[in-house]
Amino acid sequence: MAILLATDFGDAEWAAWWPALQAALPGERLLRSLDEAGGADGGAAAIDVALVANPPRGALAGLPRLRLVQSLWAGVDKLLADPTVPAEVPLARMVDPAMNEAMAETVLWAVLSLHRAHFAYARQQRAHEWRQLPQRRADEVNVAVLGLGQMGRCCALRLAANGYRVSGWSARPAAIAGMPTHAGDAALEGVLRSAEIVVNLLPLTPATRGLFDARRLAMLPRGAALINVARGAHVVDADLLAALDAGQLSHAVLDVFAAEPLPPAHPFWSHPGVTVLPHVAALTDARSAARIAARNVHALREGRALENVVDRARGY
Amino acid sequence: MAILLATDFGDAEWAAWWPALQAALPGERLLRSLDEAGGADGGAAAIDVALVANPPRGALAGLPRLRLVQSLWAGVDKLLADPTVPAEVPLARMVDPAMNEAMAETVLWAVLSLHRAHFAYARQQRAHEWRQLPQRRADEVNVAVLGLGQMGRCCALRLAANGYRVSGWSARPAAIAGMPTHAGDAALEGVLRSAEIVVNLLPLTPATRGLFDARRLAMLPRGAALINVARGAHVVDADLLAALDAGQLSHAVLDVFAAEPLPPAHPFWSHPGVTVLPHVAALTDARSAARIAARNVHALREGRALENVVDRARGY
Repeated sequence: MAILLATDFGDAEWAAWWPALQAALPGERLLRSLDEAGGADGGAAAIDVALVANPPRGALAGLPRLRLVQSLWAGVDKLLADPTVPAEVPLARMVDPAMNEAMAETVLWAVLSLHRAHFAYARQQRAHEWRQLPQRRADEVNVAVLGLGQMGRCCALRLAANGYRVSGWSARPAAIAGMPTHAGDAALEGVLRSAEIVVNLLPLTPATRGLFDARRLAMLPRGAALINVARGAHVVDADLLAALDAGQLSHAVLDVFAAEPLPPAHPFWSHPGVTVLPHVAALTDARSAARIAARNVHALREGRALENVVDRARGY
Repeated sequence: MAILLATDFGDAEWAAWWPALQAALPGERLLRSLDEAGGADGGAAAIDVALVANPPRGALAGLPRLRLVQSLWAGVDKLLADPTVPAEVPLARMVDPAMNEAMAETVLWAVLSLHRAHFAYARQQRAHEWRQLPQRRADEVNVAVLGLGQMGRCCALRLAANGYRVSGWSARPAAIAGMPTHAGDAALEGVLRSAEIVVNLLPLTPATRGLFDARRLAMLPRGAALINVARGAHVVDADLLAALDAGQLSHAVLDVFAAEPLPPAHPFWSHPGVTVLPHVAALTDARSAARIAARNVHALREGRALENVVDRARGY
């Protein structure tokens, strides 16, 4: 049997991933395309595992013996929205402690930047303006983390360890030792009303699409800030810009966008209240992710339970 | 007896400090100037304590019963350089855990910004450029903290708790559990040679003035970064600019300057490799600092040992 790599990798990504996957899967037949498989059926029947990262549409169709689709990325909303991805084959997300730590670093950096006024100081520097702004203690700053999966929990705990007053919210109840958490739609308004900084780490599902619209942004205290490191479609761009322009929001740190790359003419690029990151909050580390993908391949081969299989009804 | 407040406070600072000091020193006679003291000698003989923050030159001269000069700021280099500050009266530094935490936040923010390329991403945003830069793990990044007093230790431990590979250096041996530390002039070159990010938290003394000159900056690995949150005079500005222009240094985060406010025409303001902060790495928190100053006043009144008295020969 063989493993198909179905990705949109460019040369730089292949340079990182190919040796990492070869090292993690010694003795396995790794194919960068079906053409490499050969055989009368074009090689399709030889494939039992697909490792995917933004696979070209249709790349996973017509593989009769496919038994595992392992994503190399954490988010699977695009895979679930693609009808050519076979719905009966188990689909596994990438859950990598190294990615969780990278995400926690990004979220902590953004919270520190907001709390300690570093976006304002950067604007002052461009104006050659020397002005000290008020300074608060971390334990005076309310941060709400929405989404308490592995990344959300890791981020919430990192913020708390650095002194912030953190609360968590998730669709279904999730406990974190020493931290107030809330669950369900009815609790969301209360969480937003007391959050000075909101960190979005929710999965993108029909229930969370467009969550940050005018109504929800209006629930935040005036001058609050939003950090979106989940999916661009969680945010209604026009509503966010209106809230920033009205002073309802003081700043937004955005790593993800409805269309990526963010189009050069999009108003986010030049809005003084928006920090744009090019979807880098938690890049997959090829070395550790290849080992984690290999673990699921070995589990499949040896008849053990697969890890991090997506619940398609739930959407993550 | 009475307590003289000798400061350069403006209205905003008085608004924070006056109620904090009154609350921390109930029953004490607090004077914002000698004029308020009255008496035949102009009130000078009534003063036994001076609480100082950039005191006007000469403000502490001619106070015959002065027994304690308590600084409200952490750094005392200016007080030691002022010959009108009586040398025979104990001088105490402000050592405030809240300031240490504020400093640790600033240092962590700067290290995260450098490690995760946030200064580069900010430049890319201004050019509407979407480009992902390489990402490393925190435990792959060597950070050296110079100066292991209370602030330096707090910063080093905070960086280590957030995953960085941290080493420390100080003039005299100082141990930190679980962290390699080095001491003395002979060890400095080795520390600099392996540091990708250098954090300066040294006291300003004749031995450390101008420490970051062309020779020492050349010891750093090419592309290293400097975070200076101690004193501007630790750095030779022209040498730092030359190292940045030559690519020997990739970036400098500077909170302190030889002249403050940084003059509007200084090249640091507009250099793409320099982040300028207006001396805000650790603002004194009036609430906690007033209580800490009061503790030393009470110790004096009750004949107990004073805390954080400066060794004038050592300079800190």
